[in-house]
Amino acid sequence: MLEMIQSPTDLKQLTPEELQTVVEEARQALLTKISQHGGHNGPNLGVVELTVALHTVFDSPTDKLIFDVSHQSYVHKMLTGRSQAFTDATHFDDVSGYTNPQESDHDLFTVGHTSTSLSLANGVAKARDLKQENYNVVAVIGDGSLSGGLAYEGLNNIVELGTNTIVIVNDNDQSIAENHGGLYRNLKTLRETHGAASDNFFKALGFEYHYLAEGNDLQAVMELLKEVKDSNQPVLLHIHTIKGKGFKFAEANREKFHAGGPFSLETGEYLGQSTAQATYNSVTTDFLMKKMQEDPTVVALNAGTPMMLFSPEQRAQVGAQFVDVGIAEEHAATMSAGLAKNGAKPVWAVNSTFMQRSYDQISHDIALNNLPATILVYQASVNGMNDESHLGIFDIPFLSHIPNLVYLAPTSKEEYLAMLDWSIEQDQQPVAIRVPVGPLQETGVADATDYSLLNKNAVTQTGRDVAILGVGNFYPLAQAIATELAVKHGIQATVINPRFISGVDRKLLDSLTVDHQVLVTLEDGILDGGYGQTVASYLGQTTLKVLNYGLDKAFHDRYVAADLLAATGITVEKIVREILTTVATKD
Amino acid sequence: MLEMIQSPTDLKQLTPEELQTVVEEARQALLTKISQHGGHNGPNLGVVELTVALHTVFDSPTDKLIFDVSHQSYVHKMLTGRSQAFTDATHFDDVSGYTNPQESDHDLFTVGHTSTSLSLANGVAKARDLKQENYNVVAVIGDGSLSGGLAYEGLNNIVELGTNTIVIVNDNDQSIAENHGGLYRNLKTLRETHGAASDNFFKALGFEYHYLAEGNDLQAVMELLKEVKDSNQPVLLHIHTIKGKGFKFAEANREKFHAGGPFSLETGEYLGQSTAQATYNSVTTDFLMKKMQEDPTVVALNAGTPMMLFSPEQRAQVGAQFVDVGIAEEHAATMSAGLAKNGAKPVWAVNSTFMQRSYDQISHDIALNNLPATILVYQASVNGMNDESHLGIFDIPFLSHIPNLVYLAPTSKEEYLAMLDWSIEQDQQPVAIRVPVGPLQETGVADATDYSLLNKNAVTQTGRDVAILGVGNFYPLAQAIATELAVKHGIQATVINPRFISGVDRKLLDSLTVDHQVLVTLEDGILDGGYGQTVASYLGQTTLKVLNYGLDKAFHDRYVAADLLAATGITVEKIVREILTTVATKD
Repeated sequence: MLEMIQSPTDLKQLTPEELQTVVEEARQALLTKISQHGGHNGPNLGVVELTVALHTVFDSPTDKLIFDVSHQSYVHKMLTGRSQAFTDATHFDDVSGYTNPQESDHDLFTVGHTSTSLSLANGVAKARDLKQENYNVVAVIGDGSLSGGLAYEGLNNIVELGTNTIVIVNDNDQSIAENHGGLYRNLKTLRETHGAASDNFFKALGFEYHYLAEGNDLQAVMELLKEVKDSNQPVLLHIHTIKGKGFKFAEANREKFHAGGPFSLETGEYLGQSTAQATYNSVTTDFLMKKMQEDPTVVALNAGTPMMLFSPEQRAQVGAQFVDVGIAEEHAATMSAGLAKNGAKPVWAVNSTFMQRSYDQISHDIALNNLPATILVYQASVNGMNDESHLGIFDIPFLSHIPNLVYLAPTSKEEYLAMLDWSIEQDQQPVAIRVPVGPLQETGVADATDYSLLNKNAVTQTGRDVAILGVGNFYPLAQAIATELAVKHGIQATVINPRFISGVDRKLLDSLTVDHQVLVTLEDGILDGGYGQTVASYLGQTTLKVLNYGLDKAFHDRYVAADLLAATGITVEKIVREILTTVATKD
Repeated sequence: MLEMIQSPTDLKQLTPEELQTVVEEARQALLTKISQHGGHNGPNLGVVELTVALHTVFDSPTDKLIFDVSHQSYVHKMLTGRSQAFTDATHFDDVSGYTNPQESDHDLFTVGHTSTSLSLANGVAKARDLKQENYNVVAVIGDGSLSGGLAYEGLNNIVELGTNTIVIVNDNDQSIAENHGGLYRNLKTLRETHGAASDNFFKALGFEYHYLAEGNDLQAVMELLKEVKDSNQPVLLHIHTIKGKGFKFAEANREKFHAGGPFSLETGEYLGQSTAQATYNSVTTDFLMKKMQEDPTVVALNAGTPMMLFSPEQRAQVGAQFVDVGIAEEHAATMSAGLAKNGAKPVWAVNSTFMQRSYDQISHDIALNNLPATILVYQASVNGMNDESHLGIFDIPFLSHIPNLVYLAPTSKEEYLAMLDWSIEQDQQPVAIRVPVGPLQETGVADATDYSLLNKNAVTQTGRDVAILGVGNFYPLAQAIATELAVKHGIQATVINPRFISGVDRKLLDSLTVDHQVLVTLEDGILDGGYGQTVASYLGQTTLKVLNYGLDKAFHDRYVAADLLAATGITVEKIVREILTTVATKD
């Protein structure tokens, strides 16, 4: 049945029984794919009935359906001509994990960050009104995404517009991990009273409100959608669904089955995971837990992805010294400012791609006030997440030029932990650390560097003619280039671990102008606005030539890192060749 | 009486009558200063009683008082040892317009952006709890600031923490202009029912809630504060005050008297304002109003400062083609994405300093989806606002390196309007325009440039040896340097108006390497991460030397622009000297 659904139009011919069959086949297809391929498991399993109902009752793409953060868009993809990507393993990669206008007219936006759907819907609806058109605008948002302030701004403005916009809150009582915040008490009360409680958050904001307890009952959902379709005012449907519905392990452990995979359908265990080896994540966890035990003012923060730092058991252990603020990166940043001001030692762990949601809070609240908060920047690398909506290659341009803030790029476990310890204990300025991506590098030698000597780089090999600065994750690349130059071309290059991204080592750079002809910078992020360009600028009026390497300014999507680097010219061979050419043409 | 208050302790000795005298003297002092000096008039006039009550009932700095956006912190300054800065004209400039820890221990944070106070308070309270200390944490936030999503994230997390935090909503039924959004219907209902309405937004989020209608009655406010002082749980006080209280013109026109000055106490008219001359603001308004009349899909957006674009009368005229989203820059950006996707032509006007609140929305919602929204970036200049919390010198680093987005820097009215028209009518990518700051420059010649030829610079004078790229507001500086070089040193420089900030003109730069020795870039923003550095990087391996000029990476405060530029070495004389030195040392 599922394979016969080429577009939502096909659903409209089906009997209730046939639609129920579609539901069951879609859930089966989901399980088949995500158990083999991985993905956002729980959210999608929970919205099978809702999605079938949406596409049966509404007329996409005339009616506009917008799925917040895309975590619950897989069934939507199945019903809009893309079912093969879920039923045929050879086609699994035909579709991205997110809504994607390049795949289908039924996907309005590429979305991978939370809490945006309501503001997008508000814009789509406003454009409809300006054009004097008539159709439904529907946004589906999970309860977890409601913790982001943008969702609240969206709710406010949808009511202000006052015309047709149907907000569906898919309430499965779970964010990525458990929910945090006052709103969730209200959602709980509303669930317990079947929507009848006084002090209804959504009604307070001015919505026509409907509650549905049985969000996994296809007919019940369809009836509710039919009731509000073509409404001439904003409507909010609060629909309770079961995260992980239909897969007992996912229903039982909603945090584990938010996303991941592949996993065994029989045992519910993720495959191929080894927890024996230490990683940068695990050494961070160990370090922080020890630190917290020694110092009750050390407090770790995270916005909705606590498993980056601590498992549920570890969270129970650290207690009040860990705060999950919900998916609310802005609050995490500004709360860190408040904590640091009042004498606590905040350490905020955040993925590079999500940190950009708090640029102003980092600048205006933390950096302007010059408060000693620590930001641990995860997944900041071409080798981090490779979806166009989740790239970790923009943080050097947007973070390192904020005044007062010191941005560090460690190259080994020892360096990383020394920086982290220094950052937590110092009280002079905010510090961000670009947590290395990839296997743990261990030198075996404790790092005794005094990081309060700002912008002091480490010269790890002294040479002449050629100097190579390898920033953080790209330091090994600098070493490899130096080796190639030495072995094949008899050039002993100077190799530098800059350690500081947010400023240049002027004294060192000045000294290099004496007996070096070319200086190379390598950074694991986009070239434009990056570290290398500050070096090129500093040396602009000298005779020292500068070669900057970094990624192109683009939203690269589902790439293979090695291929992207090769295409960008970031390989040992290519860079050595360009160094040799530059040295040769020295005038 | 006021002059005798050296610290809040002095208030605690006073009788109710004496406190009332302090209120009256404080209001008089406010009027005296702001009528002569300017400032945030209305918000401060409204909170005189509240502030006297706060400092009488609570024990700052042991109890922590945090004023959102600082727009209502003047009376707080008077009562914490800084009254002379309000009563003695020779000391008006002793204090900044914002809370400032460098002035007083009673000021916890430097704050100039809205909606941050609750998250700051949450961090301060959490630190208190970790340290097992006992005191009150009090945040004062205006109703207008509640439109920002960060305020909502703060409310959620204050309830989650669950310990003493006293949130005071100073509800004067007015943002900078009128309020917009669903929340404001709830506030209105609550005011009308004296807090008794069902579906109370604050109670829905879990707060103990108190309403006070008479927020300008000192004794009533003091009683309420005493009642909740030392509460062991989060409390929200919804206090109604009158914006502009005590100055009839301000009470009558709350938008006009949000901020500004000096003004006449007798007539309520602002002094020294001439509206006869055209400005970049006025030509924008004229252009957009005409464009909107011709095309009903053109829609202007703004986040809480609508007077940047349209007066109240003009807003009435453009009707549905203008949207004020409240102080919610994130929503403005993401709504623009939705509008553009559905065929409208959004033009979002925003100050540089506030645009940084929506970095992620510009990147993830607008740019990743490559939607043709137009962003007009105001006050992006060293000559813009000069408070450390309101600087417009960071937008080139944070905006110009976002993929897909084209960032333009016009140098005249004709160029600006040609860019704006092109941007509105094209459908290939998002475009931001750095609206010039300063007097209107008119060439008198319509600009016929085809801006779809991306990154094509304009060579306005052809020369040799020296090339000068003057970006936007600094283009006249490039001209002045060229003149000096020609007149005094016989050097005919090449002068370039780059027009595009988000990419370099490779072909032009390549051509310059042939017969030029030094290239100079001038930009009206910080040097690090800016346009000049992308040029330096591109030319890094050539023999063409590059001199980049821009501001130091710092939060400059209350500076005189000419002095700051001189101190940074950005003067015609200094730059000419450095050019000559570089040319002379050419090897």
